[in-house]
Amino acid sequence: MEAQNRWVSTLRSCFPILTWLPGYNLTWLKMDVIAGLTVGLTAVPQALAYAEVAGLPVQFGLYSAFMGGFIYCIFGTSKDITLGPTAIMSLLCSSFIGGDPVFAVVLTLLCGIIQTAMALLRLGFLLDFISYPVIKGFTCAAAVTIGFGQVKCPLEMSLQTLDHNRLFFKNSVISLFWSASWVGDVVLGLSCLLFLLMLTFMKKSLSSIDDDASFLVRSARGLVWSLATVRNALVVIAATAVAYSAEVTGNHIFTLTGKTARGLPPFQAPPLSETTANGTMISFSEIAKDLGGGLAVIPLMGVLESIAIAKAFGSKNNYRIDANQELFAIGLTNILGSFVSAYPVTGSFGRTAVNSQTGVCTPAGGIITSVLVLLSLAFLMPLFFFIPKASLAAVIIMAVSPLLEYGVPMHIWRVKKLDLLPFAVTFLFSFWEVQYGIVAGVTVSALMLFHILARPKVKVSDDRVVVLEFDSGLSFPSSEHFSKLVYKHTLHASPARSLVLDCSQISSIDFTVIHELAELMKQLESRGAELVFSHLKPSVLQVLLLADLPSFKHTDTVDEALQLLTSTTHTTVNHSSDGQSQERTLML
Amino acid sequence: MEAQNRWVSTLRSCFPILTWLPGYNLTWLKMDVIAGLTVGLTAVPQALAYAEVAGLPVQFGLYSAFMGGFIYCIFGTSKDITLGPTAIMSLLCSSFIGGDPVFAVVLTLLCGIIQTAMALLRLGFLLDFISYPVIKGFTCAAAVTIGFGQVKCPLEMSLQTLDHNRLFFKNSVISLFWSASWVGDVVLGLSCLLFLLMLTFMKKSLSSIDDDASFLVRSARGLVWSLATVRNALVVIAATAVAYSAEVTGNHIFTLTGKTARGLPPFQAPPLSETTANGTMISFSEIAKDLGGGLAVIPLMGVLESIAIAKAFGSKNNYRIDANQELFAIGLTNILGSFVSAYPVTGSFGRTAVNSQTGVCTPAGGIITSVLVLLSLAFLMPLFFFIPKASLAAVIIMAVSPLLEYGVPMHIWRVKKLDLLPFAVTFLFSFWEVQYGIVAGVTVSALMLFHILARPKVKVSDDRVVVLEFDSGLSFPSSEHFSKLVYKHTLHASPARSLVLDCSQISSIDFTVIHELAELMKQLESRGAELVFSHLKPSVLQVLLLADLPSFKHTDTVDEALQLLTSTTHTTVNHSSDGQSQERTLML
Repeated sequence: MEAQNRWVSTLRSCFPILTWLPGYNLTWLKMDVIAGLTVGLTAVPQALAYAEVAGLPVQFGLYSAFMGGFIYCIFGTSKDITLGPTAIMSLLCSSFIGGDPVFAVVLTLLCGIIQTAMALLRLGFLLDFISYPVIKGFTCAAAVTIGFGQVKCPLEMSLQTLDHNRLFFKNSVISLFWSASWVGDVVLGLSCLLFLLMLTFMKKSLSSIDDDASFLVRSARGLVWSLATVRNALVVIAATAVAYSAEVTGNHIFTLTGKTARGLPPFQAPPLSETTANGTMISFSEIAKDLGGGLAVIPLMGVLESIAIAKAFGSKNNYRIDANQELFAIGLTNILGSFVSAYPVTGSFGRTAVNSQTGVCTPAGGIITSVLVLLSLAFLMPLFFFIPKASLAAVIIMAVSPLLEYGVPMHIWRVKKLDLLPFAVTFLFSFWEVQYGIVAGVTVSALMLFHILARPKVKVSDDRVVVLEFDSGLSFPSSEHFSKLVYKHTLHASPARSLVLDCSQISSIDFTVIHELAELMKQLESRGAELVFSHLKPSVLQVLLLADLPSFKHTDTVDEALQLLTSTTHTTVNHSSDGQSQERTLML
Repeated sequence: MEAQNRWVSTLRSCFPILTWLPGYNLTWLKMDVIAGLTVGLTAVPQALAYAEVAGLPVQFGLYSAFMGGFIYCIFGTSKDITLGPTAIMSLLCSSFIGGDPVFAVVLTLLCGIIQTAMALLRLGFLLDFISYPVIKGFTCAAAVTIGFGQVKCPLEMSLQTLDHNRLFFKNSVISLFWSASWVGDVVLGLSCLLFLLMLTFMKKSLSSIDDDASFLVRSARGLVWSLATVRNALVVIAATAVAYSAEVTGNHIFTLTGKTARGLPPFQAPPLSETTANGTMISFSEIAKDLGGGLAVIPLMGVLESIAIAKAFGSKNNYRIDANQELFAIGLTNILGSFVSAYPVTGSFGRTAVNSQTGVCTPAGGIITSVLVLLSLAFLMPLFFFIPKASLAAVIIMAVSPLLEYGVPMHIWRVKKLDLLPFAVTFLFSFWEVQYGIVAGVTVSALMLFHILARPKVKVSDDRVVVLEFDSGLSFPSSEHFSKLVYKHTLHASPARSLVLDCSQISSIDFTVIHELAELMKQLESRGAELVFSHLKPSVLQVLLLADLPSFKHTDTVDEALQLLTSTTHTTVNHSSDGQSQERTLML
């Protein structure tokens, strides 16, 4: 019976769906359908937009947006998380895949395999090495990069227009066409941005109105809330309608998405090689080699982003996620995603927030979202031709702007100035190559940690006998510093002085330190001085006893150690009248 | 006057020669000349042998062996250290330069520049990150690799001989020639080894004889000691004499060193590009790129080896070296070495030991050694044709055998089993590619250190209020673990329980932990529980005060914190009768 219980509990932790499916009811279904549809209306325009960020044709965004819903429903531990393409992952992918869909799909497969392996090997703890300033530095830089990437296109076009105007001043038709398209894009983009900003602002101000309002007020609020929640879909639909009318009437005044592949992606094994335009074959291992560092950065960042979001919403809605199970769900989504031409996905902060706010009850909401994405792929693709790029740019800019938390560096500066260093390094390096930012930030924060370890603060009580107390553990990076301090205070004095080591703060010790200690004690002994340990913790004492240190002595307190040393010194003074001690003193 | 004193002291720390040259006297000169000559008699055969290990023509060993003496005399801080080619550096170089002298010289130049830059930027502390087990794992593996590399040649030749015997069974002249040469090499090699072993053993046993011996005994002892000290030169000279006689009489029974370049190397700027046999030009930047990781590994290992040796002899002969000044001396030696076609050098353990034992008084002994090497280059090169390779192999095997300290892993195992992991990883990876061993070992020891930081041991006193005491500092790798523990013991209980954090062992705190703390305190507050800090150190308290944590409370001792919480709990219990608290309880 007990064995069966354990079996059920293991099964439940592997398939979290088993914990909520048996109790599934109509109320939950209603809420999940509403949330799923709402998220879907955000997911479709975002997916199209993020595919642009990743440097892929827009349909690849949708290909990546539906697998997550099905898989996460079965394996996910958070009711709020929605997996799919995100701004940051798209930016990261763009720098590794170079606009090649085959590379994208291979990256998805390998990323999924690595994430699943990490989950099975319980390697989720690796994320602990990415500190908060590094994460924030990276997201700020990514937001700036992505945002400016959207503004850059019209800007470049405007420069081009200027050139055209100068070069073909007489060829007024071309110059008019260019400027029309540019002006159209800018005007449309700014209008979309303004509309999105307005709705976001209205939604925020809603929460400040109190509960005791009339029916009319509440209905109006409900309407505004709904409109604001599906604002991305609204903006894209409206912009597409405007563009469609303009095109039909023969006015090419916007840059459009243009021709896209139609229908559902084929379900097929990911390609294991690619034949380029000039006929050379690139093998799977060559693609993997080309992806290089991406195979470390993308799986890690995908998990990091998703788990950070799951943690944030778990803390808000009062549940606890299982990091390794999340890792497994994302990994599996990516592996299966590579069969439907997806690029790597992770948890999306914006859509997860929408999901949570519309009151999703179980991960089943994701299924509704996925179905909506599949329906768009099957039936709406011809309409996507007319989506103006400027409207997608507005969606992206609004999605990444909350990532630009300028308050964070100020807060870090106020609290702990030194921690601004990994933030700044990550932020700046991210503009060089976005993945270098994380690597540089992690390296800097690791070195800072090592530096604390290597240079522990030390209290030196310098009476007749030297007492050293370190403020943290002794480990190999600090052994050299420790040895230098002992030399300075004891062996360089003449005559050499004895030493008490207050170990109350030392909770672990490694072989490098022990080796250094043995060396020091030999030196001290040859100069007639001594080293006494005090306040040793049992685990440290055990290691020191095993080490066979020459003349190892230890006491419970520093005072006892001082007494012990004073008595020994007296003995030495008494002995110094005989010949042998004299000789030893001369030899030094 | 004081300013002048400071100026003199700065000048002395930059040019340590100024500290001993003014007091130089005839006694010192005598001792330095004897030591310098003795070291020279070891340096010449070792330089020839190590050039073989590095995969370069033998004269390059001598080219590398004389610059160190001149430079170190001016800039070095240890009287014992002798710079020159060493077994380990030769092995490391061989894997990067691929037998190409141009690559070797470029490596020397860049290695010298990097080391000098490290010295000027005071980056010597980087060496602290290479722990003792990693160093030992590496030297053991290098000793095995170098030793077997010397045995491999005759073995391969023996296999070749067998093949020859089988294939050209009738062609008995060739097979006889081959087997003669092979048998000759093995017999000569083993004889040389035996002779060297015998002399080493005799020298060791000398020290056990007491001082009160007759003149005859003392003279015999002096003779044995002298012979044993110059044993390398003796063996090579004897073997060369035998080989010369054999060659002159027409018997080619040994593999000889063969034709070498004659005379002193030209003093010229290092080559900045290379033209290969098939006419393609390899530019300086391409060579540097090819050297790749060697530009990190070789400078670091060079410094590490030299400083480890300087420290060992400093501790024996009771002086203290300046790591950054040593770094500068090695760097400068390498930079200038690249002008005389040297490959990278470092401190040699074996020759430094000879130097110290023969009673060198100042670094001026190095000048004598260098002059001896230069004289060999100028006048003895024609004789080097006849040096049998087997005798050089014996010199190398005897030089590296003390590095094979099989006692070290046993000692580590006895004292701290876990530290055997970086030793084993370094040892094994070194056989794959010798430089990967160090990289893998450093990574493993860093991860082990991180793991200690990430999973601090914690004491949980679990009465009505939870008291957590961590055994070491809180830093970003541990923030996740910390947060999990708090959740487990306080927030997952119902009702949520309050928490006292005993910070007596926490000496530093970073922004990631503060962010996690703020999150936790918000959670605790919303569930009606509290977090009280106690035993805060001033530096940590200051940071926490700056962080604006919600409802931050701290007390001096844990008892006070418990009292504070008990009184607050009473208040909450009293309050819980009114409506608002009731509602809050229901909401949870």
